[in-house]
Amino acid sequence: MATTIPDLTRALDAFTEALGADAVITDDTRLREFRDPFAYATWDDFTAGAVVMPRSVEEVQAVVRLANEHRVPIWTHGAGMNNGYGGPAPRLSGSVVVSLRRMNRVLEIDDECAYAVVEPGVRWFDLYDAIQAGGHKLMVSVPDLGWGSVVGNTLENGVTYLPTANDMAVACGLEVVLPSGEVMRTGMGAMPGNKAWHVYKRSLGPSPDHLFFQSNLGIVTRMGVWLMPQPECYLPLWLRVWNEDDLPALVETLRGLMLDRTIENVPQIWNTISFASVMSSRHLWYDGAEPIPDPVIDRMARELEVGRWMMRFALYGDEPIVDLKRRKIEEAFARIPGAEVWGEKCAGDRIAALENPHERVQGGVPNLDINQMTGWYGGEEGGHIGFSPVARLTGRDAVALRDLLRGLIEREAGLDYAAVLIPTNARSFVHITLIIFDTKDEAQARRAYDTSKLLVRESAKHGYGEYRAHLDFMDLASEQYSFNDHAYRRFVETIKDALDPNGILSPGKQGIWPRSLRD
Amino acid sequence: MATTIPDLTRALDAFTEALGADAVITDDTRLREFRDPFAYATWDDFTAGAVVMPRSVEEVQAVVRLANEHRVPIWTHGAGMNNGYGGPAPRLSGSVVVSLRRMNRVLEIDDECAYAVVEPGVRWFDLYDAIQAGGHKLMVSVPDLGWGSVVGNTLENGVTYLPTANDMAVACGLEVVLPSGEVMRTGMGAMPGNKAWHVYKRSLGPSPDHLFFQSNLGIVTRMGVWLMPQPECYLPLWLRVWNEDDLPALVETLRGLMLDRTIENVPQIWNTISFASVMSSRHLWYDGAEPIPDPVIDRMARELEVGRWMMRFALYGDEPIVDLKRRKIEEAFARIPGAEVWGEKCAGDRIAALENPHERVQGGVPNLDINQMTGWYGGEEGGHIGFSPVARLTGRDAVALRDLLRGLIEREAGLDYAAVLIPTNARSFVHITLIIFDTKDEAQARRAYDTSKLLVRESAKHGYGEYRAHLDFMDLASEQYSFNDHAYRRFVETIKDALDPNGILSPGKQGIWPRSLRD
Repeated sequence: MATTIPDLTRALDAFTEALGADAVITDDTRLREFRDPFAYATWDDFTAGAVVMPRSVEEVQAVVRLANEHRVPIWTHGAGMNNGYGGPAPRLSGSVVVSLRRMNRVLEIDDECAYAVVEPGVRWFDLYDAIQAGGHKLMVSVPDLGWGSVVGNTLENGVTYLPTANDMAVACGLEVVLPSGEVMRTGMGAMPGNKAWHVYKRSLGPSPDHLFFQSNLGIVTRMGVWLMPQPECYLPLWLRVWNEDDLPALVETLRGLMLDRTIENVPQIWNTISFASVMSSRHLWYDGAEPIPDPVIDRMARELEVGRWMMRFALYGDEPIVDLKRRKIEEAFARIPGAEVWGEKCAGDRIAALENPHERVQGGVPNLDINQMTGWYGGEEGGHIGFSPVARLTGRDAVALRDLLRGLIEREAGLDYAAVLIPTNARSFVHITLIIFDTKDEAQARRAYDTSKLLVRESAKHGYGEYRAHLDFMDLASEQYSFNDHAYRRFVETIKDALDPNGILSPGKQGIWPRSLRD
Repeated sequence: MATTIPDLTRALDAFTEALGADAVITDDTRLREFRDPFAYATWDDFTAGAVVMPRSVEEVQAVVRLANEHRVPIWTHGAGMNNGYGGPAPRLSGSVVVSLRRMNRVLEIDDECAYAVVEPGVRWFDLYDAIQAGGHKLMVSVPDLGWGSVVGNTLENGVTYLPTANDMAVACGLEVVLPSGEVMRTGMGAMPGNKAWHVYKRSLGPSPDHLFFQSNLGIVTRMGVWLMPQPECYLPLWLRVWNEDDLPALVETLRGLMLDRTIENVPQIWNTISFASVMSSRHLWYDGAEPIPDPVIDRMARELEVGRWMMRFALYGDEPIVDLKRRKIEEAFARIPGAEVWGEKCAGDRIAALENPHERVQGGVPNLDINQMTGWYGGEEGGHIGFSPVARLTGRDAVALRDLLRGLIEREAGLDYAAVLIPTNARSFVHITLIIFDTKDEAQARRAYDTSKLLVRESAKHGYGEYRAHLDFMDLASEQYSFNDHAYRRFVETIKDALDPNGILSPGKQGIWPRSLRD
């Protein structure tokens, strides 16, 4: 793969002229903020040549046009918090990072039809605050960490947890700056004066919206986000099981409860180590260099009271229905010996006061509390890589993936197996494998990155593919989707070449390179 | 728009050689079966030059390759029952219709994850029968008429009514023959051996699935369809209101009940005339040539017991929850004076025995009972055109669209205003305007087609666009989506030209023409 670093001198002058000097960052110290936050200090695989910060759609268009004129690769982010997958760093070193952080307006909050319209720099915190400030009785589905961009996270297929986000369904209606610099609006937004842009998801004709997810085919400058009316009753629930091998029964029971819509939100199933990593530090439990052995994990499970697997999930609705559903859930999980279900009801307008950050997240209240996870090995400087294959939501698949990944992570990398299984819909789950390491320990960091690549290859041999890939193995992850001699990749490349003949927009994103950088 | 009729002689020989003589239809009598079923007898705007009937993916690939070789336009359908929008007829006269009716295998029914995988010739009846024959405790979301193709209907954004189909969400994972003749699989299907193809909807990288809806960018040869587990209790419900102006209160109340997920399926709201048209004939009520006046509509409302607006909808779930929801619904609609809600519970495995065809449709049991609708004006030979704009699900929009469309239909066409409002999700609805006419009456038929075009233009002036367009005004409907000098259409055209340089696949579909037939 070609990775020529372009000469930016003339382009930077042009960007400065168009956007103003304060919108163009070139000094090395500030550029370091746009690295992969977990990369070892001296690594420079993915470094920005400069950063530009447009304030408006027109300025984004100007940036794209200048990039074409000067044949400069650009790489976009919303807030740039895509941690675990490379953060704000570009795939192609020397690219100009287009940071959309300054485009941070909440353009609309619609009470009637329960949606918001946001620019790409709006963070989950910002949208939540705007909803509160306006007194809207609406909830936004948020991810575990609230500092990211609503648009950026959603475009990466990022997972959030309210019923509205089941099956990744919140986005509705995009405005996009195409690689040509032209602005397009999707769906009903393509009709001037049409008010159904953010309430109906299809176009008359082919619907291109999902082409702009995990994509280098356009820069999304505006997006509709479906919100949920505040329910009368919110019931965050916990399920704990004590045996490692309770996992398949847990998953099978859960699928039934999701398929019949008893559970409508997006649950998370944590193993002991992943939960321990946000509550504790490794050295308190074990000081061996090798992976923590099972008896120690059992002790952690007991003493931290997190079990071998712990699931968080929630119910939302009228209190009598919530009560009925809770009873059904308790009965369903009672078939697993020792399984416990607990949780306390909360009024829909009192969620922000809850103490537990998970319960706030599932209630649409963003926070950063579980960020300490990455301190597991090394205090303040912890990092993680997300390795995240998708599987059918069956006990069989959960066990197969667990055994495969735990085996490789422990055996090949000597690291602990930290897993969070997230059923993003009733039929499938994403197996978030948190490869946690000390970013100050180069050997450990290198081993974590290398292990991730091994996992990509080995998982694919068993038919499991990533839902999202880290910069460092985007090509490798993409390589696994090889049906019919990579028909899918060639299809996207054909579109890429037609829309972006100069190959300026985010070259290499999810394994898609423009013609000039292929072969 | 160029509409050259190609010379097919050499191409037909090649198709015959590849597929066998029985797979190629050229005689005029048989070709007439592939006309717009409601076009007046002598009209020949949209006529097939021939029909080919491949039996397999390989044969579809052969057809596409030969079409490229001979530069012959092809036009596909699943079952060809797209009535109201042109049926199986091609947009460009002389095109070779590729009928996929022979590709009618149900490839898989998955009990665990509740989905089926079907070829494009599988009809709703076929899938339903396969589910019953296999003893699967699963329900398929079906449209009002069961004779269409599951794939064909779904690809046209056709509406079905189970909770699984809310927001048009049933399709998951496609196999597509591209205009080059190559086969591509989307999502997880792009990875050999991946079993999550039909349970997870996104790709690693941009997701192209929705590019193949209402599209001429590929021929879908296989699709996953999400099914729903049979509930303990099914409760089909009816709501009736007696005043024309109860509509906004009905819609506002409904939106609240859909946003909070009390009602999870896709309801239908019928006006008196649309309901009368499936239960009765016009001449029994009125023999004037002008539109039926309000006092007569009121009499029909009373005597047919359908009210001025009647809504069908349904609940599915555990009986105690269904009971609670029913009570909430009754209380909510009680604020409309005279509104009545009724319905009878039915066990989830007894739905096929229900007498009312609407209640069977909403219970996933396909039938053809309401097809007689089009007999309103003229007995056996009735026809209809669907004019179907999208709007926000608000009382304001429902009234604005009703007044606009009723006014134009009655005043300009002298026809009766038959409307079915379908909230395909909690935030928007499709206003199906059934322009019913006697296909034997050329003047009336012509007026119906002309009126539809007027409605397209006038609705767009008010910001309402079609979700789906009839062959006869696809270009006009597409023309209305003109934001930024038709940025959307130019975007799709760019993709079209890149994927289909010879412009062979369904030229003109939803207003998208290949380069050779533009300008």
